[in-house]
Amino acid sequence: MTIERFLKDIRQIIKAENRILTEIADRSSYGYDASFGYHLPDLVIQPTAAEEVAAVMKLANQYFIPVYPRGQGTSLSGGPLPVKGGVVLDLSQWNDKLEIDKEDMVAIVSPGVITAKIDAAAREIGFMYPPDPSSSHVSTIGGNLAENAGGPRGLKYGVTKDYVLGLEVVTPEGEIIRTGGRTVKNVTGYDLTKLIVGSEGTLGIITEATLRLVPKPPASQTAMALFEDMVDSGRAISKVLTAGIVPAKMELMDQLSIQAVEAYEPRGLPTDVGALLLIELDGHPVSIAEEMTKVKELCKSVGARTVQVAENEKEAAEFWQARKLVSPAIVRVKPTKISEDATVPRSKIPEMFQRLKEIRETYQIDLVVFGHAGDGNLHPNIIADARDHEEMERVEKAVADIFTAAVELGGTLSGEHGIGTMKAPFMEMELGKAGLDMMKRIKTSWDPNNILNPGKIFPEPGQRLVLRHD
Amino acid sequence: MTIERFLKDIRQIIKAENRILTEIADRSSYGYDASFGYHLPDLVIQPTAAEEVAAVMKLANQYFIPVYPRGQGTSLSGGPLPVKGGVVLDLSQWNDKLEIDKEDMVAIVSPGVITAKIDAAAREIGFMYPPDPSSSHVSTIGGNLAENAGGPRGLKYGVTKDYVLGLEVVTPEGEIIRTGGRTVKNVTGYDLTKLIVGSEGTLGIITEATLRLVPKPPASQTAMALFEDMVDSGRAISKVLTAGIVPAKMELMDQLSIQAVEAYEPRGLPTDVGALLLIELDGHPVSIAEEMTKVKELCKSVGARTVQVAENEKEAAEFWQARKLVSPAIVRVKPTKISEDATVPRSKIPEMFQRLKEIRETYQIDLVVFGHAGDGNLHPNIIADARDHEEMERVEKAVADIFTAAVELGGTLSGEHGIGTMKAPFMEMELGKAGLDMMKRIKTSWDPNNILNPGKIFPEPGQRLVLRHD
Repeated sequence: MTIERFLKDIRQIIKAENRILTEIADRSSYGYDASFGYHLPDLVIQPTAAEEVAAVMKLANQYFIPVYPRGQGTSLSGGPLPVKGGVVLDLSQWNDKLEIDKEDMVAIVSPGVITAKIDAAAREIGFMYPPDPSSSHVSTIGGNLAENAGGPRGLKYGVTKDYVLGLEVVTPEGEIIRTGGRTVKNVTGYDLTKLIVGSEGTLGIITEATLRLVPKPPASQTAMALFEDMVDSGRAISKVLTAGIVPAKMELMDQLSIQAVEAYEPRGLPTDVGALLLIELDGHPVSIAEEMTKVKELCKSVGARTVQVAENEKEAAEFWQARKLVSPAIVRVKPTKISEDATVPRSKIPEMFQRLKEIRETYQIDLVVFGHAGDGNLHPNIIADARDHEEMERVEKAVADIFTAAVELGGTLSGEHGIGTMKAPFMEMELGKAGLDMMKRIKTSWDPNNILNPGKIFPEPGQRLVLRHD
Repeated sequence: MTIERFLKDIRQIIKAENRILTEIADRSSYGYDASFGYHLPDLVIQPTAAEEVAAVMKLANQYFIPVYPRGQGTSLSGGPLPVKGGVVLDLSQWNDKLEIDKEDMVAIVSPGVITAKIDAAAREIGFMYPPDPSSSHVSTIGGNLAENAGGPRGLKYGVTKDYVLGLEVVTPEGEIIRTGGRTVKNVTGYDLTKLIVGSEGTLGIITEATLRLVPKPPASQTAMALFEDMVDSGRAISKVLTAGIVPAKMELMDQLSIQAVEAYEPRGLPTDVGALLLIELDGHPVSIAEEMTKVKELCKSVGARTVQVAENEKEAAEFWQARKLVSPAIVRVKPTKISEDATVPRSKIPEMFQRLKEIRETYQIDLVVFGHAGDGNLHPNIIADARDHEEMERVEKAVADIFTAAVELGGTLSGEHGIGTMKAPFMEMELGKAGLDMMKRIKTSWDPNNILNPGKIFPEPGQRLVLRHD
């Protein structure tokens, strides 16, 4: 069999037998991610050098065996799933390099380094690495880079892509290239760095990254604002931002999220409000204090019931704990969670709230809304039971309607989770035939054999969204 | 002749005869930009609609006629030069749209809008558009986008690319596509927006852009620090930045720049210092005041002779005027100015100063250093006389050495001017064969006939730097 000949050749390159996993008990752990579906890979390799990755890609092209790079598998869009069989490249074990250069204000990291550790190392010398996906204590920087991960702090600080200065990348055909560099300004040729970041592992395998760090803000303060109606919270967001205040974070929880959290781990949140906003300001203490006064006024001016400012860091951490509990809380209601990240222009947030309400009613589904409301990046989550075929059919229709609503309101299918397998059928709706074709041309020119992470981003002919198990 | 058949067909599409320039008197104005060389185009078209641009590109592919998009021609790297003959698309007349949406915090603009007008319109409602290339009062946003223009404010706020949310683009084969959108977060497929911005007009013609605006800082303050030795100024930059202070601007003038300005328009600057730094802080007044105290201490700790803080806006404007006069002042010394923008990691600034000093001595050239030192983006400018062949030969060698020094120090050929024609021969030195090949693959897959802005970025076989006229 091809895979056996491939394996024989690989053993000539990677001499550490314990980094080549062939047993089904080992491989089966690589069939999942945090999204949908199960796909058993034929083989798992744990490389720890760019030369090893390059050799794997050269052999993979020779034998026409698909390769899927993978970090910790926290992807919400199916990024690392080996949907066409073949080899999973587990990069999570390659975590030996985490260098901080204070003078250049950069971090140089191996792909398997846990994201939160980069931020922690930067903070030791007064800097920070801002991107903070919810999974940052588990996920690898390689996965974050492949998916261009976001997070609450994206509102003020931007997403992963905004902090990448340079990459070492193995191309689909096994060449080792370096993109960008160590300088904040670089216009030498096409921006391959920003093309590869967010390409979901379909254009190259990142083997090292140079990340930009920024000074840690001297202070921060958090407020919790309660609104009778979710639409009022949308107006508050708009009022604050157009007043020239850019909070570090501005997160929303709707009534169902609040109720789910209170049922899961009671924290004294009022379950009768329509929505709550958590607003974190950071910067100079004097500046924050002035901005917080304005934030309170603005929230009240659109009908906030109360605006409570955390008195200290401990209380602020408690406010944020409520937000963090939403995901674990809602899966207690039903076992299957479909987490979306459709994103709309800020001015369309109230309209999107309305559309989501209609979708909930039309399909009679459990739809919870929370997320990074400040940048229009909502997380409508549908809670269902995957074993219930009739319910899942309604869920499929609701998901399609959520995507349609986002695109119709001038937004996008995905703000931070990526396209992967599930959203691929909707790509043409947003990009048009010509737009999608220009992306495909890049993929084909870089990966003529379609060896690297096939089945992602680009829809197969006639592909439709299917959440029902066979 | 092909061009005549092309012209006949174009007249069927663009009915306004005054937007098709065939006379040599008109065409000759399009043979130059702010860099080197003169190339007369066969035809100039001034489109004012994406459909017109698309039709031109379709015809150009049919007749195999090269097309060169152009804004105001302020490029310092030859971006708009019609080096292989053909058609210049002058987009500077297409300036009818400049919409500001306060709620979404975006500006929607036509390609011919002057960059400074976008910032002015944003400031009217309390926002700003940060990118500020020196040419911003003359250059078009289309040109800025094509070249990913920088500017002094890049230190704190980033460059053009960091403010582009979405584009309307005509592909090299004449399809109209939309990339990105109106949301700050978007991970739907490959990031074509950031690929096209900075691609120097070789991957598409930008016909509309959606730009992100940010709140205008409430206050700013400027200081001028004088140093006996340029290397000390480099140490001051490092001290300030690693202390967690990110100035809005941090600009350097070396002794020769100061002397040139004083000879051109005396402003009372001390001509005996090795270098001066202009440092602008912006933000909350209390925060600025505290930071300015620290900046003064830090500059003095590395041997600054004096640090003078501007007492009011008028005085600050006078400080900045000195910096703005460098370019006009130095061309008074000799008529030919070769403006480079080699960029190094911040920690290598003192070493780069040393290398530039050696290059000046080795080749006995007039080399002036100024620029955006805070982000390592120096502007070594060589002043010469293009009619002096012997001198120009030395200049060619010096330029090659500047590029080599930048790359050897872990930097890049270009921080903000682009590659164009002049730096193309040095691309492989920085990117390697494989890295350059991956860029070429994208170009070929998008523009199989090499119709759109040929002769830029990618070196011709055996191409060398030539600054001498024939």
